[in-house]
Amino acid sequence: MTDPSTKIVQGDLQDQKLGDYQSPLGVTRTQTVAFPGVRTQSGFIFDQVEVSYQTLGTLAPRRDNAILVCHALSGNAHVAGIHPDTRRPGWWDFHVGPGKAIDTDKFFIICANVLGGCDGTTGPMSLRSETGRPYGIDFPSVTIRDMIAVQAKLLDHLGIERLFAVVGGSMGGMQALAWATDFPNRVNVCVPIATCASHNAMQIAFNEIGRRAIITDPNWNGGHYTSGRRPKHGLAVARMVGHVTYLSEYAMTQKFGRAVQAQVNTAEAEAAIFTVESYLHHQGKSFVNRFDPNSYLCLTKALDQFDLSGGSAPEEMLREVTARFLVISFASDWLYPPEQSRELVRRLKRARAAVTYINLETPYGHDSFLIENPEFAGVMRHYLDNEYRAMNFREGGLGI
Amino acid sequence: MTDPSTKIVQGDLQDQKLGDYQSPLGVTRTQTVAFPGVRTQSGFIFDQVEVSYQTLGTLAPRRDNAILVCHALSGNAHVAGIHPDTRRPGWWDFHVGPGKAIDTDKFFIICANVLGGCDGTTGPMSLRSETGRPYGIDFPSVTIRDMIAVQAKLLDHLGIERLFAVVGGSMGGMQALAWATDFPNRVNVCVPIATCASHNAMQIAFNEIGRRAIITDPNWNGGHYTSGRRPKHGLAVARMVGHVTYLSEYAMTQKFGRAVQAQVNTAEAEAAIFTVESYLHHQGKSFVNRFDPNSYLCLTKALDQFDLSGGSAPEEMLREVTARFLVISFASDWLYPPEQSRELVRRLKRARAAVTYINLETPYGHDSFLIENPEFAGVMRHYLDNEYRAMNFREGGLGI
Repeated sequence: MTDPSTKIVQGDLQDQKLGDYQSPLGVTRTQTVAFPGVRTQSGFIFDQVEVSYQTLGTLAPRRDNAILVCHALSGNAHVAGIHPDTRRPGWWDFHVGPGKAIDTDKFFIICANVLGGCDGTTGPMSLRSETGRPYGIDFPSVTIRDMIAVQAKLLDHLGIERLFAVVGGSMGGMQALAWATDFPNRVNVCVPIATCASHNAMQIAFNEIGRRAIITDPNWNGGHYTSGRRPKHGLAVARMVGHVTYLSEYAMTQKFGRAVQAQVNTAEAEAAIFTVESYLHHQGKSFVNRFDPNSYLCLTKALDQFDLSGGSAPEEMLREVTARFLVISFASDWLYPPEQSRELVRRLKRARAAVTYINLETPYGHDSFLIENPEFAGVMRHYLDNEYRAMNFREGGLGI
Repeated sequence: MTDPSTKIVQGDLQDQKLGDYQSPLGVTRTQTVAFPGVRTQSGFIFDQVEVSYQTLGTLAPRRDNAILVCHALSGNAHVAGIHPDTRRPGWWDFHVGPGKAIDTDKFFIICANVLGGCDGTTGPMSLRSETGRPYGIDFPSVTIRDMIAVQAKLLDHLGIERLFAVVGGSMGGMQALAWATDFPNRVNVCVPIATCASHNAMQIAFNEIGRRAIITDPNWNGGHYTSGRRPKHGLAVARMVGHVTYLSEYAMTQKFGRAVQAQVNTAEAEAAIFTVESYLHHQGKSFVNRFDPNSYLCLTKALDQFDLSGGSAPEEMLREVTARFLVISFASDWLYPPEQSRELVRRLKRARAAVTYINLETPYGHDSFLIENPEFAGVMRHYLDNEYRAMNFREGGLGI
């Protein structure tokens, strides 16, 4: 039996009990900026979109060291450092910081909460100017491409014409891919991690189960719930489904096995409550406290709808791409299996893109990109450092 | 894009649209028998347990050709032939019938709804004699071993001292294994299919998500729901989770891919409803009409609690076993992965049991044992025929 208190921190750092975890960045803050007249792919026009974002490190005088980090479904703008209110580290604190994979001593890092999210950027919880009430379920459907169009406005605002790199895992990886195809002249390096060019039926199915759990919770109330009566049970079930799909059987066996949290022994019942059950309840509950159910519906739908080829032939779609790619998958990721990354790599190579691909043997499932993982960190760090040096060399600089 | 009307029938036959499916057995019926004073492992004593069961074929004069078929979570006593009321084929009609894998021309087949079930055998829906009201959530916890103890009483009632074989997939496979260890002198051949000696953390986790969806449905009402207000949404979500885990990514891609059922195009939304989503809704709905939520809680808990070794050392537990085993797994079964079957085989072999093991390449996931599958059928048929012939030869008969 494995000790259930084993130190494997899995999943989003925001949901973990981390004890005396220290971030070398100290307290970091997010900012907000607003852009007027934003139009979605579906044709909806927002009077104004607010964007919550964080920047770390220093923009070089040549403005050539910016890395946009795109977050996954449950992430937000708070990518690294300690949050001033919650005192929790950012979701990628393991990999963003001084001397880390994405080195704040060298690079200028930007991370923004996505359109449709629920942590500072305009989303279903935002107030609609016409009514003064939250959009709720009337929030327009948004796409991965809508998300990056808003990020592009943020880069304009920050005076960044061209990114050195765009990096992201899972939903963040889809955004990175969309950046390379939609803004081919604004991206030098693209790092899609544990992601795919489009969801398969199983990925859609798991998302739909989560959505179903939310919308059949009576408190969902047709999408017009109040803060006092949120569909928290449905959202918790959705998160539990999601969480299990992010882990590997190996990780769960290591962490929980068949360890028992509590034992009921009566004349009617002789039943064990397994530790893994309590853990999932905790994950569900913790998520409910920080996430908006309608936002969950909105973002999972964006994930399912995403199709990198966008209807045109793969070669057509990738014709304009100039970015160089580092594609990373994890052997134990059964939700976004390595075969999807290999298919992506084949398509990029057919389009004559420069692609480096690595399938890491990390045994912790889809969440492998979120956890402390020296091999993964090393791959990213070396790739980014080398590419930055090479780019400077090509452009007549001296590199760093 | 694959034609979503493709003929791969997946999952329980009871939930499929089968058109003009014919069963060579014609209409088959179930019977009921009652046993007084049944005691569970937890110490609860039922005044009486009713058992719904079906028999097919003819018991040989030597009473040596009986095969007990044990059903999985969603099954029941109606194993093959057409149900007189629903007009649906039994859940294993593909594999039980004249000339089929389990040949009704040669064998006498018995299948009984399990204790704790909801289709004729005593379970949470049954009326409690003291109150005249259903047990509901007060139904005692039952174990896999409680289920087979009731089946043993049924065999006594039918005058069958010794089974030629006990066969079952998934939860049915656990029952088959428990038969071989708990009644070592009553089983000649044991065929556990797509099963394991105990659930791992991931299997427990998926079951717990289903249970959570049920008990957080307000209509569950602490387990005391009425027939007019059942927690049908929770049960539907539970079934959707289960159903996806029973399939393989390959099967889902073949059957659905990214096929779209309906498209919404408004100023607010441009969204596809994928065919796989509609399919899952149908699966959930269909299941809700035929299954009891408290029974789902009861049976999934029995699954999670099952541990073949029952606390003693594996060698100890298997010391008395005399049965010969055919262990079958499916390469694409990620819920009950082949590694679990291989571990089971290693344990049986260490206990010097006669074991044949086959891992079939069938690509349809855990449900592979429920679908039309000539290779699987051939393996079972040949094994059972040969073992029956060998048994008769050993016992001085002529075989058949």
